Amino acid sequence: MSVWALTGIPEIQPGDDLVEVILAALERDPDEPLEDGDILVITSKILSKAEGRIVEAEDREEAIRKETVRVVATRPREGGGATMIVENRLGIIGAAAGVDASNTAEGTVLLLPVDPDGSARQIAERMRAALGVEIGIIVSDTLGRPWREGQTDVAIGAAGVHVFEDYAGKTDAAGRPLAVTMPCLADELAGATDLVKRKSTGNPVAVVRGLGHIVGGLDLPGAAAILRPAERDFFRLGTDLAFEQGFDAGVASVRGAGGSSAGGSGTGDSGSGGSDATTPGAQNAEDETS
Amino acid sequence: MSVWALTGIPEIQPGDDLVEVILAALERDPDEPLEDGDILVITSKILSKAEGRIVEAEDREEAIRKETVRVVATRPREGGGATMIVENRLGIIGAAAGVDASNTAEGTVLLLPVDPDGSARQIAERMRAALGVEIGIIVSDTLGRPWREGQTDVAIGAAGVHVFEDYAGKTDAAGRPLAVTMPCLADELAGATDLVKRKSTGNPVAVVRGLGHIVGGLDLPGAAAILRPAERDFFRLGTDLAFEQGFDAGVASVRGAGGSSAGGSGTGDSGSGGSDATTPGAQNAEDETS
Repeated sequence: MSVWALTGIPEIQPGDDLVEVILAALERDPDEPLEDGDILVITSKILSKAEGRIVEAEDREEAIRKETVRVVATRPREGGGATMIVENRLGIIGAAAGVDASNTAEGTVLLLPVDPDGSARQIAERMRAALGVEIGIIVSDTLGRPWREGQTDVAIGAAGVHVFEDYAGKTDAAGRPLAVTMPCLADELAGATDLVKRKSTGNPVAVVRGLGHIVGGLDLPGAAAILRPAERDFFRLGTDLAFEQGFDAGVASVRGAGGSSAGGSGTGDSGSGGSDATTPGAQNAEDETS
Repeated sequence: MSVWALTGIPEIQPGDDLVEVILAALERDPDEPLEDGDILVITSKILSKAEGRIVEAEDREEAIRKETVRVVATRPREGGGATMIVENRLGIIGAAAGVDASNTAEGTVLLLPVDPDGSARQIAERMRAALGVEIGIIVSDTLGRPWREGQTDVAIGAAGVHVFEDYAGKTDAAGRPLAVTMPCLADELAGATDLVKRKSTGNPVAVVRGLGHIVGGLDLPGAAAILRPAERDFFRLGTDLAFEQGFDAGVASVRGAGGSSAGGSGTGDSGSGGSDATTPGAQNAEDETS
């Protein structure tokens, strides 16, 4: 597999046609032209800029609120303000709803693209037609993770690429089913290109060659397929917020039920935590405390 | 950047010397010999096998318990049993404490290596001496993530590689500080090599060439530096478990304090959640519910 950053992508302005910009850069690029099976990973930032998703920096907090559909966790930040982990409009869970204050024009912040999967599909469609080669498109963004310091680039948009290598039905070398193993190729692709993009700044597009076996039709699921529904997630709510909601439910259970068993009331009060995303785990209590 | 899997690594047996095995494979490998700045990413599985970290499959649950230092979240699994997210001996948070039941000999499961960072350092030291080139070593494992389906390979051991590109003190193109941006290069490297390793199974070692700028001394921090301390993490405890602990604390606050204000009691009872990892966020309540 070879991975290289596409050079000569100019500063993107609102209204720019990214496909034309990338095609022009490809013509000027010293590397060979794109081939069947190549995958282009595009930093979401330039897609946002082309879409004119720029707002005044003073409106950053308001912009974050507008992009937020659900607060997952928050904690006061050293030096004031609060770090907010939220689920944004696209269903992506991350800090500040993806509102980006770095590498934007002074006094402005950048919102995530309107529809990264849709844009990826359009870009793939037009570039496949223009170049006559079957390429895949990934739109990448930088996300932090629980439990691990630092950030990695992941896929927030995809088209013409298998975002997962689905092992369902397959077996390991010893014949055991590998159903639970489902590597997220799209996220690994985004991270891989981040390594070359940051070698020289200002290279928001990178090419991955040698993985033609994971490139396919434009009807393949996009990056939205990577997003796990909150109700299926063990960490749909931050620890502090979940504890607070549990605390309130516990107090209510005693007061409301005149001191009846916490466990029973806990089950009954499951919905009273105040967040639709919270389905407190009374039925999981035994497992959790074992 | 070019990434390729090293071919001809035989099935590893307990007691095998991984360095000798890899050096032999390198000699047989059609690709050029290693150069200064190359990074070798080794799947933790073969390190575990070489260390003889194999236990009988019937003892899997017991092995998981032994490897576990803290239960982070758990939920009943469809078809019986429970999915456990735990912090293991190494401080890594993941499913089943990294105890692996796939691609092992029938009737056996594999534990994580004893000391991935230490092993990475030893391997890097010996290979640098044997080949006379400054290479980096990453030990990779496959981890799931909250909020996103599927798994990616990440670094659980590292030597001679900058695990982070630390932007602290640096500024973006507009001169604003990028202190919060700290890309985890080691995890992105592990994920990148997973893409080539799985093209042909049985290739547990891959080479990354072209990132010599992130290869350095063997005194660089290892992958342990990637692990975020629980007390600094927003998701140190699963939602259900945190809610349960909050519920119990809420009940206790009313009974104990004879029904005094939940908020006040909540603050006072912060420690009563029952888990050292829980420092319930009474002081964060306003932010969290805003």
